[in-house]
Amino acid sequence: MRADARRNYDRLLAEAAAAFAERGSDEASLEEIARRADVGIGTLYRHFPTRPALLEAVYRDQVDALATLAEQLGAADEPGSALAQWMAAVTAFGSTKRSLSASLLETLGKDSELFSMCSTMLRATTTALLERAQQAGVARADVDGQDLLRLLHGLMLACPTAPGSADQIERMLSMVVAGVLTEPVPA
Amino acid sequence: MRADARRNYDRLLAEAAAAFAERGSDEASLEEIARRADVGIGTLYRHFPTRPALLEAVYRDQVDALATLAEQLGAADEPGSALAQWMAAVTAFGSTKRSLSASLLETLGKDSELFSMCSTMLRATTTALLERAQQAGVARADVDGQDLLRLLHGLMLACPTAPGSADQIERMLSMVVAGVLTEPVPA
Repeated sequence: MRADARRNYDRLLAEAAAAFAERGSDEASLEEIARRADVGIGTLYRHFPTRPALLEAVYRDQVDALATLAEQLGAADEPGSALAQWMAAVTAFGSTKRSLSASLLETLGKDSELFSMCSTMLRATTTALLERAQQAGVARADVDGQDLLRLLHGLMLACPTAPGSADQIERMLSMVVAGVLTEPVPA
Repeated sequence: MRADARRNYDRLLAEAAAAFAERGSDEASLEEIARRADVGIGTLYRHFPTRPALLEAVYRDQVDALATLAEQLGAADEPGSALAQWMAAVTAFGSTKRSLSASLLETLGKDSELFSMCSTMLRATTTALLERAQQAGVARADVDGQDLLRLLHGLMLACPTAPGSADQIERMLSMVVAGVLTEPVPA
C-alpha cells in the first residue's frame, strides 16, 4: 500500500472504531465515517467493500494492538503496573468488542480462527502477566489467570453502556485492580 | 399452619432450592424433591399446587432470608466484615436466582412487585453497608453502592455454572472483597 493510501486506511479504521462504539456497528453511517476520516466514500469502499469487511478490519486491528501491548508489558519493569495496564486494556477492548460482536459473529461465525486466536492470546497473556506479578510478590498468590480474566469478563458484561458511564467503569476496574494487586500501583 | 405442616413446608423449600440449583428449575424432579424432604408427593402438591408456585416460594424465601441478614449486618460490630458477608450472600443469592430466573420471569412478569422490591433492597443495603464501612475507614471512599453492586452482578454473570466451580467463584469474590476493603477482614 502506498503511504497516502495507508494513511487513509488507518484514519478510516480509527474513525470507524469510534463511530461503532458511539452509535453501534449496525447504525453508524459509513458516509460520516468517510467524512470524519477526510476521505471520499469511494475510498472507503475501495478499502472496505462492505460494512462487515470494515467491522472485521476494526476488530483485527484492535486484536493486533492488544497483542503488541501484551509483548511490551511482558518485558516491562514493573510487573504490578504492567498487570494493571493490561487489565485496563482488556476492559477497553471488551467494550469495543461488545459494540462489534453481534454483527461480527454473524460474519465470521462463532468458531472463527480470529476469535479463537484472540481468546488464546487473552488467556495466555493474563496468566503470564499475573504470574510475573505474583513472582515479584505484588499480586495475590491464591488466584489464577482464569479467575482474573473471568472477573474482567463479568465487569464488561455488567458495564453500563450509557454515554457518560466511563467513570463508573473506571471505578469498577480500579476495585478489581486493587483486589488482585497487594501493593498500590504508582500513579 | 400446624407445626408439623410448617416443618414439611420448610423441608420442601430447602430441598427444592437445592434441587433447582443442581438440576435447573425446569428439570428437577418434584417426586425427588418430595422424597428428599421425606414427605409424600401429595403433601408437596398441597403446599405448592404447581411448579411455578414452588419456584416462587423458593425465591420469596431467599429474598426474605437476605432481608433478615441485611438487618442483622446493619447492626453488626465490624462494618468491614459485615460488608464482606453481605457481598458473599448477594453472590450466593445471585447464583440461585439465576437458576430460577427464566421460569420465574415467565410466571411473575418482569416488573413484578417481588422483583422490584428485591432490587430496591439490594441497592439500599449495599449502599448502607458500604457507607458504614467507609465511615469506619475500612472501605475505599471513592466508590459507591451502585459500582459495587454492578461489579457483583458482573461476577454472577461471569460465574461458571459447572459443578465444582464453587472454588473459583469464591476466589473471584475474594478479589472483589479485597478490592473494596482497605483492611483485610479477620477470618
